[in-house]
Order: sequence, then C-alpha cells, then structure tokens
Amino acid sequence: MKIDLRSITEKIIQFRNNRDWAQYHDPKNLSQALGIEAAELQEIFLWKTSDESRDLNHDEIERVKEELADIFIYLTYLCHEFNTDLFEEVLKKIEKNANKYPIEKSKGSSKKYNEL
Amino acid sequence: MKIDLRSITEKIIQFRNNRDWAQYHDPKNLSQALGIEAAELQEIFLWKTSDESRDLNHDEIERVKEELADIFIYLTYLCHEFNTDLFEEVLKKIEKNANKYPIEKSKGSSKKYNEL
Amino acid sequence: MKIDLRSITEKIIQFRNNRDWAQYHDPKNLSQALGIEAAELQEIFLWKTSDESRDLNHDEIERVKEELADIFIYLTYLCHEFNTDLFEEVLKKIEKNANKYPIEKSKGSSKKYNEL
Amino acid sequence: MKIDLRSITEKIIQFRNNRDWAQYHDPKNLSQALGIEAAELQEIFLWKTSDESRDLNHDEIERVKEELADIFIYLTYLCHEFNTDLFEEVLKKIEKNANKYPIEKSKGSSKKYNEL
Repeated sequence: MKIDLRSITEKIIQFRNNRDWAQYHDPKNLSQALGIEAAELQEIFLWKTSDESRDLNHDEIERVKEELADIFIYLTYLCHEFNTDLFEEVLKKIEKNANKYPIEKSKGSSKKYNEL
Repeated sequence: MKIDLRSITEKIIQFRNNRDWAQYHDPKNLSQALGIEAAELQEIFLWKTSDESRDLNHDEIERVKEELADIFIYLTYLCHEFNTDLFEEVLKKIEKNANKYPIEKSKGSSKKYNEL
Repeated sequence: MKIDLRSITEKIIQFRNNRDWAQYHDPKNLSQALGIEAAELQEIFLWKTSDESRDLNHDEIERVKEELADIFIYLTYLCHEFNTDLFEEVLKKIEKNANKYPIEKSKGSSKKYNEL
Repeated sequence: MKIDLRSITEKIIQFRNNRDWAQYHDPKNLSQALGIEAAELQEIFLWKTSDESRDLNHDEIERVKEELADIFIYLTYLCHEFNTDLFEEVLKKIEKNANKYPIEKSKGSSKKYNEL
C-alpha cells in the first residue's frame, strides 16, 4: 500500500496519543524541538567543506536520513496543531517565492530578493 | 488533482532548476538554511507562555504556516540530494522510537529514553 | 591573578594555534558551531515548563555551564576574526536597545519594539 | 574607565530590571532567544563560500558585531541565573578540551575526539 501524507500523519499522531504526549507538545516546545533536530543535522556537516558535505560516508548518510525523519515528525505535529495542509502551503510559498525571485533576475544568483 | 509527495518534490526542484540554484545547495548550506527557518519559526513563540503559544492571532498563524512551508522546502532539497524516500524514513524512525519509548514505560512522561 | 577578557581571549586563541585549527575556523563555520552549541543548551530545557527550567538538578546545571563556556569560546573566535571589542559592542547595543525600548513604554511588557 | 565582565554584567542586568523583564527571562526562554540570535548571525553567512565569509563588506561586519553583542547579552543573563563565573568555566572547558584533543593527535585535523 502506498503511504501518503494523510496516512503518515495519522501514524505520527497515533504514536503520540499512545504515549499521552500531546500535553508536552505545545507549539513553542515543538518549534524548539524542531530547531534542535535541525542543529543535529547541521552537526554532521560542521567543519566539512562544501564538497565534503556532498560526499558523506554510509554511516553519515544514515544519520542524515534519521535527522530528516525527526524534523518531518515535528513538522507534522505543528501542521496538525495549526490544521495546516502542508502541501497547499508549500504551493502558495513557491508561488510567492516565484514573485520575489523572478527567473530573469535571480538566475544563477544567490542574492536575497531585496538585493536583486 | 491531488498533490502528493512526488509532485510537490518535482515542483520544488523545478523552481530551483529554473533559477540555476543547485550550485549553492550543497547539503551543508541546505541544513544551515533549514536551521535558520526553524529559528524564524521559534521567534513567533519566543517570550510566550505554553498557553499563549497555543492561542496565536490570525497573522501569527499565517507566519507559522509560511515558516512550516519553508522548512519543508529545504527538507525536500535534502531528501532529493540523498535519494531519501522521506515517508519510508519516517516509518523506520517511528518504529525505532517505539522501541526506545515502549508505551508502558513512557506513557505520560517527558523523560528521555535513557532516563526511563 | 584576575582573568580578564584579554587574557581569556589569548588562552582561547593559543589553544587553537597549538592545534592549527584556524584553517577550519572561517566565520561561516564558527557561526554554525555556535548555533549548534546553542541547540545543545536548549536541549537541557526542552519539554520542561518555565518553572522547571529554573529548578535544574546538579548535573543539569553542570551541563548548562559547560554549554555556556562552549558558546563563549566560539563567540571569542568570531570577535577575534572581526577585531571586535566585545564589551564596547555590548555597550553600544544596550544604548540602542534603550532607545528601542524606552522604560515607560516597555516596562513589564514582552512586546517587540515595533508593537509597543 | 576600563569595562570588565563584572561592570558589563551589571549594566545588562540593570537594563532588564528597569524594564521589569526578569519575569520573562526563565532559562528556557533565554536559551531559545540565544539560539535565535545565533541563527540571525548565521544568516549573514548563508550561501556564502568559506572565502566569502571571511570577506564581508562594511555593513555586513556591522551586523555581525551587533549579533555578537546580542548573543553575549543572553549569555550574561544565563550566567547570572546560574551564578556562573563565565571565565572560570571557560578555563575549565579549555582544560577539558585539551585532554580530549591532545596536540599531537589533533594538530591540523578537524576530526571529533572520538574519531581521533
């Protein structure tokens, strides 16, 4: 069976309900937990050059994947809290970014939109 | 038409390809960008109490949703870089967490697994 | 002998020079390292209430102190890189903040200056 | 008059007392605020190469200095909360790091102590 956003969300919420953890999961805590996981992800790349960060060994890649999963889990709790349709929000954000970064002005440039 | 993980990923990658930004998107930079977005999310809740963080006004909720989208976008670039099937990784992580946090020991507790 | 900012800075730089690590310490890496240490600090308080965060046990306090030292060490490398007189900058920032947050408007309020 | 750690700490605490902000400054909030400032610092270097991060323009350097001051201010509140003698803690940490990273093993290497 194909896993989709709805079914993975249900599994994540069910995991929490089984442990009665919603009481700890206010948005403030969830956002902090997400930030901590983002730091654990960054730790894998710290002191590496750009090239080295693209050339991880097997164990490092496994750690990356686990951190990506952790980040998504907290993201899902936050989406659930705010009744957010994640993919809809992403579509809106892509459209907004497309207006901030028109192709002809931003192509090949790492400048921020207010510096273009 | 229903948006799924594959189609949203394609849109995110296409947005980047149109702007020739893959050159800046090494995993080190992407993880740092994700961490910065996570901090922007946290900023919305800073100085708020737990209860206040559950009771945002309309504008704050809109900001939250936009930050959640930003985080997911960087997460998607990282999954793409590491050929990661995000939902598969999440399922593996839930199973791993279920072993670290058995229901009978962790129910109603915010302790870490090594303190249970 | 009293340790002051100059002497502690010298010790921190000497530690690095002995190990030939300046090559890895570009500002980008240093700022990322500092952010990771800040996350390790936050991890001690995660899932705790405000009151619990003020009531740590002995081991937790020791961890906090160690993280505070780590953060200061990276801060010092960055000050060194940018020839920054840290205490002078702090004085300037306090004055700037005093203008943004006049006592009569900000007293007892956690609002940001642009919401006062 | 020379500013030292004690006098700068007093100024930082006095700024807060004048505004009655200690009520918001539990360690959990302070650590989160510090993390957010660390992210604002990193934002200056995002998408830059290592070399570019060493070659900032005047405005960027001013922003860096201001972020360094912000980080130190939150660090000071945390030291105050935990009755921490910051420089003493740093000396202890340097000694601890010297044991984890003996010069002969770590010279010129960015490896973590447990990989040396």
